[in-house]
Amino acid sequence: MASVYFTPGPAQLYPTVAGHLQNALDQQVFSQSHRSQAFKDLYKRADAGLRALFQLPADYSIYFTGSATEIWERSLQSLTAQNTYHLVNGSFSKKYLDHAKWLDRNAQVLQVPFGQGFSLEDVQVPDGTELLAITQNETSSGVCMPVEDIHALRQRYPEPLISVDIVSGAPYAALDFSQIDMAFFSVQKGFGLPAGLGVWLVNERSRQKAASLEGKQYTGGHHSLASLQDQYQQFQTPSTPNVLDIYLLAHVVEDMLAKGVDVIRQETEAKAQQLYAFLEESSLFAPFVQEKRHQSPTVVVADVLDRPAAEIISILKKQGFVVGSGYGAFKDKQIRIANFPAILGRQVDDLVQALKRL
Amino acid sequence: MASVYFTPGPAQLYPTVAGHLQNALDQQVFSQSHRSQAFKDLYKRADAGLRALFQLPADYSIYFTGSATEIWERSLQSLTAQNTYHLVNGSFSKKYLDHAKWLDRNAQVLQVPFGQGFSLEDVQVPDGTELLAITQNETSSGVCMPVEDIHALRQRYPEPLISVDIVSGAPYAALDFSQIDMAFFSVQKGFGLPAGLGVWLVNERSRQKAASLEGKQYTGGHHSLASLQDQYQQFQTPSTPNVLDIYLLAHVVEDMLAKGVDVIRQETEAKAQQLYAFLEESSLFAPFVQEKRHQSPTVVVADVLDRPAAEIISILKKQGFVVGSGYGAFKDKQIRIANFPAILGRQVDDLVQALKRL
Repeated sequence: MASVYFTPGPAQLYPTVAGHLQNALDQQVFSQSHRSQAFKDLYKRADAGLRALFQLPADYSIYFTGSATEIWERSLQSLTAQNTYHLVNGSFSKKYLDHAKWLDRNAQVLQVPFGQGFSLEDVQVPDGTELLAITQNETSSGVCMPVEDIHALRQRYPEPLISVDIVSGAPYAALDFSQIDMAFFSVQKGFGLPAGLGVWLVNERSRQKAASLEGKQYTGGHHSLASLQDQYQQFQTPSTPNVLDIYLLAHVVEDMLAKGVDVIRQETEAKAQQLYAFLEESSLFAPFVQEKRHQSPTVVVADVLDRPAAEIISILKKQGFVVGSGYGAFKDKQIRIANFPAILGRQVDDLVQALKRL
Repeated sequence: MASVYFTPGPAQLYPTVAGHLQNALDQQVFSQSHRSQAFKDLYKRADAGLRALFQLPADYSIYFTGSATEIWERSLQSLTAQNTYHLVNGSFSKKYLDHAKWLDRNAQVLQVPFGQGFSLEDVQVPDGTELLAITQNETSSGVCMPVEDIHALRQRYPEPLISVDIVSGAPYAALDFSQIDMAFFSVQKGFGLPAGLGVWLVNERSRQKAASLEGKQYTGGHHSLASLQDQYQQFQTPSTPNVLDIYLLAHVVEDMLAKGVDVIRQETEAKAQQLYAFLEESSLFAPFVQEKRHQSPTVVVADVLDRPAAEIISILKKQGFVVGSGYGAFKDKQIRIANFPAILGRQVDDLVQALKRL
């Protein structure tokens, strides 16, 4: 019997994926040249869908990379020469910072403990900062930054480019893309696709900054922003991309649009509420994130009280519920429950019942 | 009716791909964590298969990246500080050189015209060269470098690391990996898989050179050789990889091993012979590559005489034979016929009959 994957990526596949994959095989999509009109049409279709889903301002471009990790690197190479500022509260926001350090940027950081979010008054971005890196949803700790806070930072800091990691928040997070300059995600989380594709959304302001750095430093070679943009103008990519994932993304985004992003958001919130309500009343679990407005609706992290998390995970697995372990040092003390659009309401009901029986 | 893709990548899928994909979906492989034991076992399985297929010396490591293009970049970042030497005879060998220039390396080049191969006596690699870049099979022009020539260069030049692009030659090319230091390919050519995965094979000597550069320059961040090796030791990857392609690669390599790489090589040669024999006797086509020992068995490029290539391609397409167009400036004058393992002997028979009817 099939299990339900509540893992925070790779995750449960979106219910329509298998059907789309079969159609693509039938149509021999994966043998078509990535320089063909058929591929350009596919890219254009994914582009149109993502624009509608995210309500992107017209000046945004959409690029494909090998992973969201690669976008950490490429965004720093293409968009910064020197000064970055990072909001760090977990393993993934920390990795964006690591990339900046590896690239010898003068990387400033506001760090808060694992499991906590940021108070806006603590954020002090120095003058001259080129890029402000925000992780909208920390997959490691289950802390989110409310989109209003991101928008408020734009008002306070009009100068730096604002880069938002929406890896495990998209498409739920109702970000106003006119209030930021770039965002990125990978497809194996909220989009419920097989892993292997990063998606990078950038505005005109980012492209201008990238253009100003071209020729002055190494901006990322074939995957520099300028090179990606150059190809994007014909709906092409600098190297042979993951056509299979682009195909699935184009189709799943259309499925999501047909359902309605508002419906997806409402369902996400209802499922999240049910999970957090259970954790609050449970004697075996407690929500790890204390501050309600920082509790992620898409990645719910629970402390496991008095029993090893591995035991819980193992029992659930036997019942067909695959939940994630805690991240890093929290492996033995926490479980992580992804609440992505691929997870149905009744599957959350079933999981909560199973958790209650433990 | 299904067409047969004789395109040089993306290409005809290996006949077993659809079945493997269905099995993986049934087993929910693409929802499994890339940090799970299941993924480690999968990586290990792909590793074991590739070792057997290429008869790799024990000191080789195998890494996964987003594309072969990325390996051009990462190999230069991780393995060179200054001096590279490139054998350039087409668009893809030229792109390796471009990456070296973008990275400000002192890149020396021996360039011969499109459609020609190299005479060993013309190769003069300067002392102090860190990396000698060879493209074993030029996908753009259909010129190959016989593996004996590559082995001979090792004898003449023991010092530089020898990097071999086997993107459209693998697994046909019977390279002796003890005579080189690294090689790489992407899976959408000779392996007949959906695009989106680069495979990088490196020996201990490469790893030592990479270690000597760590801390002295930017070596590629999360995809530096050192970072890839660090994860490889546990059969892990620095970022979430294209698990789907790794799964298909592991399984298709096992299918190839079951068939026997010698059988695949014999079949490739027989099919190539048939194609070149036809081109020789045809009044409509001629082999583009003149020198017999440089005629690629895996990518056969033909000049189209007196008729536009686009017309030929269009007629063949209607009959269910998809052949590639000429590369770049040769788009209107040539066709390219990929002769990868996924293409059956009878499909080449059928194509040749169709070409005769033109």
